[in-house]
Amino acid sequence: MPNTFDLRLATLRTAYREGRATPRQLIAQLRDKAAALNPDYHLFIHLLTLEELEPYLTALDDKSPDSLPLFGIPFAIKDNIDLAGIPTTAACPAFAYTPATSATLVQQLIDLGAIPLGKTNLDQFATGLNGTRSPFGECRNSVLPEYPSGGSSAGSSLAVALGVASFALGTDTAGSGRVPAALNGLLGLKPSKGLLSNHGLVPACRTLDCITYFTASAAEASELLALTARFDPQDGYSRVNPAWNDASAFGAPRPFRFGVPRADQLEFFGCHEGPVMFTDALDQLKTLGGEAREIDFAPFLEAARLLYEGPWVAERYSVAGELIERDPQAVLPVIRDVLAKAPGATAVQAFRAQYRLQELKAQCDATLADLDCVLTPTIGRPVTLDELHTEPVKRNSELGYYTNFMNLLDYAAVAVPSAIMANGLPWGVTLFGRAFTDQYLLGVADALQRQHNLPLTGGNPACPSLSVNPARNDRARLVVCGAHLDGLALNWQLRQRGARLLCATRSAPNYKLYALAGGPPLRPGMLRVAEGGVAIEVEVWELPSAELGSFLTGIPAPLGLGKVQLEDGSWETGFICDAWGLEGAEDISCFGGWRGWLTSRR
Amino acid sequence: MPNTFDLRLATLRTAYREGRATPRQLIAQLRDKAAALNPDYHLFIHLLTLEELEPYLTALDDKSPDSLPLFGIPFAIKDNIDLAGIPTTAACPAFAYTPATSATLVQQLIDLGAIPLGKTNLDQFATGLNGTRSPFGECRNSVLPEYPSGGSSAGSSLAVALGVASFALGTDTAGSGRVPAALNGLLGLKPSKGLLSNHGLVPACRTLDCITYFTASAAEASELLALTARFDPQDGYSRVNPAWNDASAFGAPRPFRFGVPRADQLEFFGCHEGPVMFTDALDQLKTLGGEAREIDFAPFLEAARLLYEGPWVAERYSVAGELIERDPQAVLPVIRDVLAKAPGATAVQAFRAQYRLQELKAQCDATLADLDCVLTPTIGRPVTLDELHTEPVKRNSELGYYTNFMNLLDYAAVAVPSAIMANGLPWGVTLFGRAFTDQYLLGVADALQRQHNLPLTGGNPACPSLSVNPARNDRARLVVCGAHLDGLALNWQLRQRGARLLCATRSAPNYKLYALAGGPPLRPGMLRVAEGGVAIEVEVWELPSAELGSFLTGIPAPLGLGKVQLEDGSWETGFICDAWGLEGAEDISCFGGWRGWLTSRR
Repeated sequence: MPNTFDLRLATLRTAYREGRATPRQLIAQLRDKAAALNPDYHLFIHLLTLEELEPYLTALDDKSPDSLPLFGIPFAIKDNIDLAGIPTTAACPAFAYTPATSATLVQQLIDLGAIPLGKTNLDQFATGLNGTRSPFGECRNSVLPEYPSGGSSAGSSLAVALGVASFALGTDTAGSGRVPAALNGLLGLKPSKGLLSNHGLVPACRTLDCITYFTASAAEASELLALTARFDPQDGYSRVNPAWNDASAFGAPRPFRFGVPRADQLEFFGCHEGPVMFTDALDQLKTLGGEAREIDFAPFLEAARLLYEGPWVAERYSVAGELIERDPQAVLPVIRDVLAKAPGATAVQAFRAQYRLQELKAQCDATLADLDCVLTPTIGRPVTLDELHTEPVKRNSELGYYTNFMNLLDYAAVAVPSAIMANGLPWGVTLFGRAFTDQYLLGVADALQRQHNLPLTGGNPACPSLSVNPARNDRARLVVCGAHLDGLALNWQLRQRGARLLCATRSAPNYKLYALAGGPPLRPGMLRVAEGGVAIEVEVWELPSAELGSFLTGIPAPLGLGKVQLEDGSWETGFICDAWGLEGAEDISCFGGWRGWLTSRR
Repeated sequence: MPNTFDLRLATLRTAYREGRATPRQLIAQLRDKAAALNPDYHLFIHLLTLEELEPYLTALDDKSPDSLPLFGIPFAIKDNIDLAGIPTTAACPAFAYTPATSATLVQQLIDLGAIPLGKTNLDQFATGLNGTRSPFGECRNSVLPEYPSGGSSAGSSLAVALGVASFALGTDTAGSGRVPAALNGLLGLKPSKGLLSNHGLVPACRTLDCITYFTASAAEASELLALTARFDPQDGYSRVNPAWNDASAFGAPRPFRFGVPRADQLEFFGCHEGPVMFTDALDQLKTLGGEAREIDFAPFLEAARLLYEGPWVAERYSVAGELIERDPQAVLPVIRDVLAKAPGATAVQAFRAQYRLQELKAQCDATLADLDCVLTPTIGRPVTLDELHTEPVKRNSELGYYTNFMNLLDYAAVAVPSAIMANGLPWGVTLFGRAFTDQYLLGVADALQRQHNLPLTGGNPACPSLSVNPARNDRARLVVCGAHLDGLALNWQLRQRGARLLCATRSAPNYKLYALAGGPPLRPGMLRVAEGGVAIEVEVWELPSAELGSFLTGIPAPLGLGKVQLEDGSWETGFICDAWGLEGAEDISCFGGWRGWLTSRR
C-alpha cells in the first residue's frame, strides 16, 4: 500500500477544484485505510469516528475549494497535542484528559480548512526517538517492517508516509520530528522555537519543545509554516517571526556557504553506506551552488549530551513526576528509568548546566556566524526493532547523535530525504541554521529534494517549486559605491553591523557616477541612465537583515537605498540618489568609480 | 566636601587639554581625598597605592589628552569585578582571590585611557540593596549620614557622589546599580543584559547580572556605553549591540509615549513626599513631549517576587555555597539567611519558576509593545540606617519594589535624579524599556536631567547635551505614499511587521507624484522637484527597526527608501523613486495623493 498514493496539497487542491473528489469522500476513504493499517502499524491512538469528523466536514460543505488555503486537507495530530473533545494521552492512559479546546495550532489549521483525522501514537511523553515506547503498540517502519518508524512522533510520520494524511503534526524536543522523517522518507520541519504556538501541547521539556510538520515536500512545509507561524499571546514562549522568514517572496538564486562536521566527528556507528550517502548529499549541495566549510562539531555534541545527562530531564519530570510518584506502574519502565535521576537534581545543578549550555551556544553561534546553514546526516545508522529491544537506551541514544543539540542551541532544522539504502530503507540529511532561517533552510531542502527521484516527491510536477536558493535569509546584501567601500571613511558603519565583503564587482553599464555638491564628507550619487552610462566599480556586502534598517535610517538625503543592477544583470539592494540632489554635482563617471576619482584628487 | 567638585568627563578633558592638570596630579589628589573619606564612608575596600597606580599613569605619560577617549579619567571598580593584581573580595575576605588579568570591561576602560583608583565596598556577594552588609564597614549616604548609601554597589556610588571618581562600575542583579544612584543623586545606567561584558565578574545570579555605570550625567553614561558595549566572545552571555542602540547619531526631537503604573500599584511605603515628587517627574516628561499611558504593573511585581522567593537564589548559592558549607562564619549571617533555602531547591522548581517568569514576561512585553519607555520611582521610600538595622530584610526588600523585575524581564533601565527631598536627600525616577533601547532611554533621561538644577549636573554648560528626544530607538519611522497606505493593497507588508500608523500628513510642497508605467500592482513615484512641486498626502508609520531591512529588500526597482521632507519641514525615511523609472509615468500630482488618484479612476 505505501507509495501508491498522492495526498500532496497541490494534488488534492486540483482534485477538489476539478470536482474529482470532495472532502467527505476523501476523508471516509482515508479513515477506512487508516483503520485497516492500524492493527499492523499502531499509528493511531484515536482515529476520529465519522460522527466526530462530521463538524469539520459540515464546516466545509458550503465553501468552495478556493475559499480556504487548506480546504479539505487531511492531517494527523500527535497525541500530545490537544484536539477539542478527544482525549490527549501522551501515550499514557493514566495521564489522559479530554481538552475542551484545541491547541492553538490545531485550531489554526482547522480554521484554514484542514481536517483532523486522528491522534497518533508516540513514544510515551514524547520521550524517545524510536516509536516502540508506547502501550498502544510499536510503530513499525513504513517501508521495512523489521525497522521502527522512529519517534517520538511515530504515528504522525506513518500517517503521511502510509498515505493517510497530507501532513501531520509531530513534536520535537530532542529529534522527534526529524528521526522519523529520515526513516520514512519524509520532510521533517523542526521550526525555530516559538514560531508555532505550543499552547495546548503536553510538554516534554517546555523550554525546548517545538511542534513540527511532516510533509512529502519542502514546498508544502514552507507553505504550512507561512500559514501558521503566528505570535500566540497564550504561549509565553511564542516569538514573532521576522518578515524575512516569511514565505511571501523568493529572490534570485545565489551561492551559499554550508558547514560540514569535521570527518572524524561524523559518526555512522558502523554503517558503511552512511559515509557514501552523506558525501552524495554534500556533493548535491555543491552542485546547487553551495561552498562546503569544515566545522568543529565538538561543542554541538557536548550541548547534545546535556539533554539527557544534565538537568533538563527535570523538565520532563515536572510533567510526569506526579503520576510516577502516585502510580509508578502507569508509566513505562524505560521512561521511569530515563527520569529516575530527575527528582534529585538541584536548582544549583540546573543553573550550572544552563551556564555551560550558554558557553557552548556562544561557540556554536560563532561557528554559524558566516555560514548559511550546516549539513549533517539526520541519523548515523538506522537500528532494527531487534536491536532496540536488546539495547533500548543505547540504540535510542545513537539515533539522537545529530539531533539532540538543536533546540538547546535554538536553531532551526529541516530533515530531508536524500537517499535509499541498499535494503530499501529511506535515508536523509538535516540542514540546520540560526533561529528564524526556517524558510531559507526549506528553500535549500526543496532544491536538494528536486535532485532526487525519491518516493512521495520525485518527478511529480504537481508539487510547486521553491526557488533554488532563496535570497530570503536573516542576511541581506548591500551594494555600495562610495565612502562605504572597504577601507574608506564610512566603511565602519558596515563593519560595526557585522557586515562582510562578498565581492568587488561592477554595475551594469547603465550608470553615471556623480560627486555631490557640498561635504565633507564627500558623497557619491549613482544614477541609472537610459544612455551614455558606464559600469561603475561597486562592492557587494552582506549584513544581518535586522541591522539594515538602522543603516538606512542613518543615510541623509538625497541618498537612499533601492535596487542597483550589477554587471551580471542581477538587481541587488544598494545606494541610489534622488535626482534633485544632483544639482551642482560633478559627473565623475569617467573615473570608473569612487576610488578612481579620489585617487585623481590627491 | 560633597558637591564642591567637578570630575565630569568634559571638565577633566578641558583641564587636561589646557594644561591645568595632569593625570598624575589629579590621581594623587583624588587618592588623598579618598583616603581621607574612607574612615567615615568605607567606600573603598582597596585603594590603589601610588605604586599600584604607577603603570596606569606611566602608560599615559607620552600620550596627548586627545589621543584617548578616556585619557586620565579616574574610575572606581566594585570589588566583585576583577582588576589585575588586586584582590577581588566580593566583600568576603575568605572568598578573596587575586586575578592575574582584569575583567574585560575594566581592561577596555584602561585601554581607553581611564585610570582605576580602587576597588569599592559592596553588600557581600552583591546581595543587598542598602550598603550595610559588609565586613569592611557600612556605607553611609553621601548627603545624609543617617541614611545608607544604598547598595549593593555602595562604594561605587559614593566614589562618584563624593567626588573621588568621574564614574564608577557597579553591578545590578536586583537593583544594585539603581538604588544607590537614587540615594546619592547619580545617574545609574543598568544596560541591557549582555551589552557590557561580564567576563571577570563574580556572579550574583549569572543569568541576570549586569555591570552598570554610575555617572553624574546621562550624557556621560551614554558615551561610556557607546565606548564599551562590545561583543565579548569570552562571555557566553554577551550579546551584539544593534546599531540603532549606538550613540553615534541622534535624530530630531519627537513625541513619545511612556507607561506609568496604575495609581493603586504605586507604592511609597508611607512616604508623603514620594507621590508629589513622582507626579512632578511625570509632568516633566509630558513637558518634554511625552504622552503618559497607565499600565497594569501587576505582572512586573509578580516577576519581581520570583527573584528572592523563587529558585534564583540557587544562582547565588552556586557562587557562595561551597564557602558557606565549609566555613559558615566566613559569610555574614544576613547573607546566609537569604541563601538558606537555596540548597534545597530542586531543578524541577527552577524550571517551573522559569516557566512562570516566561509567562509574565509575555504579559509585560505586550504592555511595552507600543510604548517608548516606562516611568517609575526608583525607590518607594528611603530608609534610615536605624530602620535597616532593626528590620534588615524587610527594609531591604522595600528598596527593591521598583527594581527587582528588571533583569528577570530583560529590560534596560536608567535611574535618574529628579528631586531633592525636604530633608536634603536625593530622590529619583527610573526609565525602563525593551532590551537594546539603552541609548534611547539615556536620551530621555538627559532631557529630564536638564530640566533640573540638581547638584552634580545642574546648570553646567561643560556637560554636552544629548538631543531632547532621540530618534534612535528600536523603532523606525517610515513615510509611505502609495499602495502601503492604510487599507491599500500592500499595507499588509507593514502590519505584518508590527507597524502602526502614527499620523496621516502631507509632504513639504516640493514634490510631484507619478503613477509609474506598468503594473499591476500600480505603483507611485514621489519625486522632489526644484519648482512646480505640491504637498502630497502621505502617512507616517512606525515599525521595529529590525524589520525595516526586509521591507527594503522587498521593494523592486525603480523604487527605494530615502529621506522625504514632511509638511513640518522634518525629514523622515520614506519612499523615493529612481529618476529613470519615470519613463512613461503619468504626473498625478494634481490629485494631491495616491488615494485621490485611485478614486478618480473608479
